[in-house]
Amino acid sequence: MELSRAIGITIGDPAGIGPEITLKALKGINCRDILIIGSRQVLKREAEKAGLNIEGIPLVDTGSLGKYEYGEVQKKCGAQALSALELGVDLLKNGKVAALVTAPVSKEALRLAGFQYPGQTEFLARKLRSRRYAMLAWSPFFKVIFVTIHLPIAKVPGQITAQAVLEKILLLNEFLQLEGKSQPKIGVLALNPHGEEFSLGEERQIRQALGEAQQRLVNAIGPLPADSVFARRSDFDGFVAMYHDQAMIPAKLLARGVGVNVTLGLGKIRTSPLHGVAFDIAGKGMANPSSMVAAIRLARRLVARTD
Amino acid sequence: MELSRAIGITIGDPAGIGPEITLKALKGINCRDILIIGSRQVLKREAEKAGLNIEGIPLVDTGSLGKYEYGEVQKKCGAQALSALELGVDLLKNGKVAALVTAPVSKEALRLAGFQYPGQTEFLARKLRSRRYAMLAWSPFFKVIFVTIHLPIAKVPGQITAQAVLEKILLLNEFLQLEGKSQPKIGVLALNPHGEEFSLGEERQIRQALGEAQQRLVNAIGPLPADSVFARRSDFDGFVAMYHDQAMIPAKLLARGVGVNVTLGLGKIRTSPLHGVAFDIAGKGMANPSSMVAAIRLARRLVARTD
Repeated sequence: MELSRAIGITIGDPAGIGPEITLKALKGINCRDILIIGSRQVLKREAEKAGLNIEGIPLVDTGSLGKYEYGEVQKKCGAQALSALELGVDLLKNGKVAALVTAPVSKEALRLAGFQYPGQTEFLARKLRSRRYAMLAWSPFFKVIFVTIHLPIAKVPGQITAQAVLEKILLLNEFLQLEGKSQPKIGVLALNPHGEEFSLGEERQIRQALGEAQQRLVNAIGPLPADSVFARRSDFDGFVAMYHDQAMIPAKLLARGVGVNVTLGLGKIRTSPLHGVAFDIAGKGMANPSSMVAAIRLARRLVARTD
Repeated sequence: MELSRAIGITIGDPAGIGPEITLKALKGINCRDILIIGSRQVLKREAEKAGLNIEGIPLVDTGSLGKYEYGEVQKKCGAQALSALELGVDLLKNGKVAALVTAPVSKEALRLAGFQYPGQTEFLARKLRSRRYAMLAWSPFFKVIFVTIHLPIAKVPGQITAQAVLEKILLLNEFLQLEGKSQPKIGVLALNPHGEEFSLGEERQIRQALGEAQQRLVNAIGPLPADSVFARRSDFDGFVAMYHDQAMIPAKLLARGVGVNVTLGLGKIRTSPLHGVAFDIAGKGMANPSSMVAAIRLARRLVARTD
């Protein structure tokens, strides 16, 4: 394997479903370009349960953690997840892997281990020195980029600036072109209900961003009422949402079990399954790896296209 | 027909799909208890297009309006919609009809005709002197009540008080019991992303409301992360949402073409199809009456249950 073309996979919190979906995903795909980043102890335990042999797959071992319980927030598990993430981002930054796929972490466990970021995305952005990044919720059926992510609702309106919206439109347009649409059609959601009827001026910012995007020949329209536009979602290649739930409610309802989180604007490729650690089903062998498979495949396609 | 048991139907804006879906709906149901409130001129035009005879259906005629165009905001159409609404609410208030079903209106047209309310719901609440009312988005598959409705997002957090949330929980519980669930299970959404992770205190208000509801033996739980809870929506009989799009995005995606708006807390029964005037398809005979049929049937069931 040529390491600089590899897809690095961090296995996430050992107490969650991350290691399980990673191994299940690898069973179904070609592993020629995979580099796992995580504890050999954890992977061996999962492999035995799944009747898998992991000997052939390259691994960066983050070491043993002793006894741990499934489905619980544990500092030692948070520390493991953090080690894998730190190693992963170093490999990505130094071009040792071409893309990073991150399995789910428990933010509570990460925080017990000293992690002080709102999430993995913000950590990666900081380490890769990106200030103009954004989260894209991706599924084969529905794609939406977030103008704001991890923010109280009360603080969202103040963040809806023409510049913030324009950046997200351009990042989404670039991504959709990379995915193969030569002239993507982008729907930009309104912040307020019914579009502009109850606007306090945020939609003027959105309109300004749309004007600037159109000047750059980007086919973006809006501001669209967020409750009704998804009925005609097939008219659009992707959407720009103003805040977390406005994006994630439709994304999760429309993903049909296959959702990927893509971080755009990092200058590097990073994907992740669009679900959490699922502590309620961890260790039971019930976890569905479809989103992890999609995250790996999407990362691989993006690597191929950015060559 | 015993008038006091009748279902009054206002036909809405003549330029929209309201008159068309009203007549199409009546074709498919027993009209024994129906009283139409609207312009005979408009209804005759629609009936001729649909090959229907409306002679047998009781009508409160709001008069002629002369020439009007489909699919356009017109003051005369707004005035017609307003007349029907005013008549409808009078009949409801005076017990001349047992329930009111309102077809869609154009708020722009209503405003040209002097209407100064955010929507039909607020108008009805004012006329019926209700201050503790709420909108419920109803479908056979998904039911959600709104703590706030027609409000800029920036003003929502300040409205999330324990009292406002408790009122909505109790209204929903009462409705679900009327629908036949003896001990409904109610999911109360968080305002902020991920539940409480980014709370500025609003979720404390929600928790206080939940505590008070539980003291009254209402089975309500939360605050639940709004993006992930709908994956297990079958665990709940209904939801309480904090703002318009948080309720309407899932409601419209999950309604499968059959959505009803029910106003709770009026002391009277009022339903309405959960869609707008659809000016883009008005006059083309393409409008689907399923939501109107569901609105009439739901009103009828509620009349029967509140006897």
